[in-house]
Amino acid sequence: MREASKIVVLSGGVGGAKLVYGLAQLLPPEALIVVANTGDDFDHMGLRICPDIDSLTYALSDLADPVRGWGRADESWNFMRALRQFGGEDWFNLGDTDLALHVLRTYMLRSGKELTEVTRLLCQKVGIRHTILPMSDDPVPTMVETESGCLTFQEYFVRHRCEPAVNSFRFQGADKACLTPELRACFERGEVAAVLIAPSNPFVSIDPILAVGGFIDVLKGFDGPIMAVSPIVGGAAIKGPAAKMMVELGMPSSALTVAEYYQSLLTDFVIDKADAALVPEIQALGLVPHVEQTMMTDPRTKISLARACLRALNLSRGMV
Amino acid sequence: MREASKIVVLSGGVGGAKLVYGLAQLLPPEALIVVANTGDDFDHMGLRICPDIDSLTYALSDLADPVRGWGRADESWNFMRALRQFGGEDWFNLGDTDLALHVLRTYMLRSGKELTEVTRLLCQKVGIRHTILPMSDDPVPTMVETESGCLTFQEYFVRHRCEPAVNSFRFQGADKACLTPELRACFERGEVAAVLIAPSNPFVSIDPILAVGGFIDVLKGFDGPIMAVSPIVGGAAIKGPAAKMMVELGMPSSALTVAEYYQSLLTDFVIDKADAALVPEIQALGLVPHVEQTMMTDPRTKISLARACLRALNLSRGMV
Repeated sequence: MREASKIVVLSGGVGGAKLVYGLAQLLPPEALIVVANTGDDFDHMGLRICPDIDSLTYALSDLADPVRGWGRADESWNFMRALRQFGGEDWFNLGDTDLALHVLRTYMLRSGKELTEVTRLLCQKVGIRHTILPMSDDPVPTMVETESGCLTFQEYFVRHRCEPAVNSFRFQGADKACLTPELRACFERGEVAAVLIAPSNPFVSIDPILAVGGFIDVLKGFDGPIMAVSPIVGGAAIKGPAAKMMVELGMPSSALTVAEYYQSLLTDFVIDKADAALVPEIQALGLVPHVEQTMMTDPRTKISLARACLRALNLSRGMV
Repeated sequence: MREASKIVVLSGGVGGAKLVYGLAQLLPPEALIVVANTGDDFDHMGLRICPDIDSLTYALSDLADPVRGWGRADESWNFMRALRQFGGEDWFNLGDTDLALHVLRTYMLRSGKELTEVTRLLCQKVGIRHTILPMSDDPVPTMVETESGCLTFQEYFVRHRCEPAVNSFRFQGADKACLTPELRACFERGEVAAVLIAPSNPFVSIDPILAVGGFIDVLKGFDGPIMAVSPIVGGAAIKGPAAKMMVELGMPSSALTVAEYYQSLLTDFVIDKADAALVPEIQALGLVPHVEQTMMTDPRTKISLARACLRALNLSRGMV
């Protein structure tokens, strides 16, 4: 790499993975670095599960289920049926094919490999040529402080279906965790052309990444564009609890709230056409607004939003 | 228990599990103790797999596949397909429903429980009321010395399909391993009425059990009947490599070889009707011969052989 040419995307699971899929269709492997939230990661019956890395892996290898929104297409659930027979915990669904990734990753981690290396090896096996990096090789579990007490993220998200109202979030060990070295190196070598924050949940998908020791300083020292795509459209979250959380945290559920939340970090902000009226307010925050069709329902709309983001960043020339 | 009323059965996997199934239909839960070979146990991709305990568990819970001879009925193989995609080792087949048992057992063992306790808890969940005891809570892996070098049992059995000629077997750590305490207690309390050696492979299913520290002395001090059922019928093994091993070890492949092999231990020996001509030679060894229909092809023939064994032991009265 002779010049800054890489796009670094910060992403959670499903929503972020859709945009990442689009970007991967447009950018060559060496031009895209996906940084995955690992705050959702947890141990379940001895298996290490990394939901956002999984979603990104399945998205980029075309294995993702397009309808359910998580996990793999053509999944079967016979393991879960047998697990119930033997009295195993069944609040977290593990598909028969999805299990292969959990079993292999757990085995590789136990053999002493770091998560970055494990992710690289597993992605390689299913033909993924773009880079997915966990935000850190250290565990940084997201803890959700709710009206019903403190819950681990998966307890909150899956077991309690996001029902308890949230008060705050903690990213346990984030200050001591090391940013994945590959990512730090990209910034230090001046290879990063732009940073894109995917339309993921700001509180539980992006904030954990930003909380990892020193990353916020890396971003503050970065002089290229940092653009976020709003996960809120017309006041509602496209998927997941982002809008519900905003209300519980005392913020209006709006794309503008997201822009304000990220304000000190961003140069650019992408909103949906449905929110075009917010343009003046986003400009007033000192951000460059971009109005796009942000709903991603199929490969075409994923690629189309990715192209719009790249164009907005003035990076599409020669790459797309 | 006021008097010796328990039958202790030493068993390997499939063949032994058939007789155990028959016995379980005839004997009340407190009257049957199944001792499972754990020499085949191994770690595969971080999962602890106990093939003989599995076969016995599936047999007694009516989950076993009646056609394939191992694993569960109505099994699916989607995990294996996904595992191959991600480059996982695929020489050992793990069915989607079978995996539940491996994942749960591994999790429980890692949480600090002993195999005896784990086996008890898992059996309970699928309604098994008879007792299955691993021969030991300590690992005693069977090593197979072959013309192609030393192999672990599963490498020999599954990966190399029993092809390399065998020279000898080692049960690693057997002398230091502790007999599962529940079994020792049954003998010490004088609760054991008889010991039955199931029609399992003498070299790799029964010998490992007999090799566990002190068990042979327990059996030598036992004054009730000890009866074995020949796994060899008409010179051939009903299933598995027993007959092939005999030839490679320089023994004639015959039920008589099995009787000679166990001779110092036994009082009674059950042969198939096809081998009725061997009766005088078995008598000459000082054993009481019993000629029965030993081929077990369905529930009826399993129960029928179990009944014949109990009758032969003069234990069927009042129990069956």
